[in-house]
Amino acid sequence: MQNTAAPSQPDITAYMRRLGQAARVAAVQIGNATTAEKNAALEAIAQSLLDNAANILAANEKDLRAATRDPRNPLSAAMVERLTLTPERITAMADGCRQVAQLPDLIGEITDMTYQPNGLHIGKMRVPLGVIGIIYESRPNVTMDAAILCLKAGNAAILRGGSEAIHSNLAIAAALHSGLQPTGLPSAVVQLVDTTERAAVGALIQMPEYVDIVVPRGGKGLIERISREASVPVLRHLDGVCHVYIDADADCAKAIEVAYNAKARRYGICGAMETLLVAEAVAEAVLPELSRRYFARGIELRGCDKSRNLVARMKAATEEDWRTEYLDAILAVRVVHGLQQAIDHINEYGSHHTDSIITENLAHSREFLRRVDSSSVMVNASTQFADGFEYGLGAEIGISTDKLHARGPVGLQGLTCQKYIVLGDGHIRP
Amino acid sequence: MQNTAAPSQPDITAYMRRLGQAARVAAVQIGNATTAEKNAALEAIAQSLLDNAANILAANEKDLRAATRDPRNPLSAAMVERLTLTPERITAMADGCRQVAQLPDLIGEITDMTYQPNGLHIGKMRVPLGVIGIIYESRPNVTMDAAILCLKAGNAAILRGGSEAIHSNLAIAAALHSGLQPTGLPSAVVQLVDTTERAAVGALIQMPEYVDIVVPRGGKGLIERISREASVPVLRHLDGVCHVYIDADADCAKAIEVAYNAKARRYGICGAMETLLVAEAVAEAVLPELSRRYFARGIELRGCDKSRNLVARMKAATEEDWRTEYLDAILAVRVVHGLQQAIDHINEYGSHHTDSIITENLAHSREFLRRVDSSSVMVNASTQFADGFEYGLGAEIGISTDKLHARGPVGLQGLTCQKYIVLGDGHIRP
Repeated sequence: MQNTAAPSQPDITAYMRRLGQAARVAAVQIGNATTAEKNAALEAIAQSLLDNAANILAANEKDLRAATRDPRNPLSAAMVERLTLTPERITAMADGCRQVAQLPDLIGEITDMTYQPNGLHIGKMRVPLGVIGIIYESRPNVTMDAAILCLKAGNAAILRGGSEAIHSNLAIAAALHSGLQPTGLPSAVVQLVDTTERAAVGALIQMPEYVDIVVPRGGKGLIERISREASVPVLRHLDGVCHVYIDADADCAKAIEVAYNAKARRYGICGAMETLLVAEAVAEAVLPELSRRYFARGIELRGCDKSRNLVARMKAATEEDWRTEYLDAILAVRVVHGLQQAIDHINEYGSHHTDSIITENLAHSREFLRRVDSSSVMVNASTQFADGFEYGLGAEIGISTDKLHARGPVGLQGLTCQKYIVLGDGHIRP
Repeated sequence: MQNTAAPSQPDITAYMRRLGQAARVAAVQIGNATTAEKNAALEAIAQSLLDNAANILAANEKDLRAATRDPRNPLSAAMVERLTLTPERITAMADGCRQVAQLPDLIGEITDMTYQPNGLHIGKMRVPLGVIGIIYESRPNVTMDAAILCLKAGNAAILRGGSEAIHSNLAIAAALHSGLQPTGLPSAVVQLVDTTERAAVGALIQMPEYVDIVVPRGGKGLIERISREASVPVLRHLDGVCHVYIDADADCAKAIEVAYNAKARRYGICGAMETLLVAEAVAEAVLPELSRRYFARGIELRGCDKSRNLVARMKAATEEDWRTEYLDAILAVRVVHGLQQAIDHINEYGSHHTDSIITENLAHSREFLRRVDSSSVMVNASTQFADGFEYGLGAEIGISTDKLHARGPVGLQGLTCQKYIVLGDGHIRP
């Protein structure tokens, strides 16, 4: 196992560089491993997780005691919930390993091979990115999810979890390494940063010679800080200010079901709708009934003047509401003239995450698909579907709101890249 | 035309932000333009270039006089050559416009549509990146090349050329805008930064709200500085320390032709070979003859001890030589045991740009293709082919040595991205 005693503060940069060097070496080995070798490692890790469940639960108990004991730094109930492991959750993590083993291996895939006029045969081969740094909150299951996705895509991973989960993470990493050990793959394929010092994050994001990309998973503040300070590329996920637009040509029954689901199914996920836009022509047919359902669920509505004329209990929305990701039981509502104003609103106030139109009108759906500048654009579907598993990616490392490299839900493919291959027969350039 | 009088230094940030705002608005318009509209604009620009050739040549004459007059800052002959426009070069620029018009339009391309088990139909649509900043040296033809590629890919461009070419660039931009004017596309689709102040570059790379990606074209120093200071993503091209490896199973006649071409055809391009690796088993059959040809061309050779035993006139190579991009009539030469050492050398000392193996051995070619971690990996072909036109991309905005987003020669596709589209029928998530 790579993770020995945590160093003192002044040595953290040196410690992180040692992890980086080891990861660079391990990345070459895992990058050249066969699909069978990688899948066998994933199976062995799954079994080792189950075999070491008692250790992991005991370590988690330690984290939970510390988390609930410290009066200066009380964790919210939601955070404690995320920190908590159970035998069922460990089984789910092991199942996750086996599911990732069953995903197709993208490495080595050759595409777009075409002959050039001179007979050179040119195309692209999919290869691993190399070394991936993952920075995440106190959710011990992410330790395993992130590690196995990186491994399957042929990468080495350096994991930095939240400090409240340090004992759980160390126990999970130990189980992972003991599963990996007999397979012959180096343990440095997955390294857990075993210091809780914040300086470790700063070092991780500033060693481009050892780290090819950093994936921060957490609050907006963390991601903005990392983006600002990183000298390595960052796969970013910022806001999810998602919209549903109910078009003048919507089927109102569908519209009510989808708009209710997009908000009420879960508030706290990035694909939850935060602003509902309704075409003037159907506002009266849709808003009063939909509002009754939202109110019955305890959802607060903040609307424009036209909405409030139809639904008296609505509070007044401010300009700020159009830009807010509530992640809570609050919804902004605006009546718009029609398609153009809806698209303009979404592109102006939204966060380019996930937006959906409800319409039976083909031309309107085509225009919405083309003009809405978001990572996922939907027709007649709930924004809550914005998720790598729902998209058939088999797994998800996160959702990118950036346009470059990967946009939208990121699965295995986002952890790879393509190089050109050029096959000749002694070709020289004239 | 967007480009009015250059502002005083304190106003440069405000000036650049005005360009950014105008580009953001124009990007929506060009992003929604049809293929026919974009191609008509490219044809009109080509014609306007020819119609305004006299103005452009007069402006270029002004730049050339200034460049050759200033004794404090003399330009090299190569720089003057690149700065010089002729009637033939203007015709070539116009031809380039027409060729880009004939390239397929990638925007709107829908791929990977598959049904999920619940009936949602999910895939990807190719869309423009938005606003692209291009920073380049004093090569006026780049003004046109960069502008038309951005336009064809549905993007707005902000161009910042080298100060020595400012009059030429202004004249080219004026011709471009006068061609664009009757087409109805906004002139802010292409904006030339008309101040030569360096602060303009700093502002351009630090306004992510207006600029989606910056492409610096120029020396390594410029690109490193921009990468360090940019808060917008940068498409980077750093070193081209390219290798040819002559395998033990090479056809020696092919090997000599390809290795000679890879160095001697042109020294100054990034795909030029900088280090030649030769398997011990064929060193004696290949190196003496190849060296005679290099020497006859005036190329200096710097070799390892084994190479120098075969070719007495070779100087001794130092560790530094293995890492150097000479871009000149100098070549480093190393005899290696065989394939493994060659691959290790390339991955350790190379710059992950373009590397080629010369072999008739299928297993060796497969291993080289898989394990060499470079943006282009070649078999039996000269590294000088590393070029977007040679790869059939139809055009090239640059060569990326980064792994993310675009790797290797970057054509139109690298100026676009993909968003997910999700088509349902009133789907709600359980």
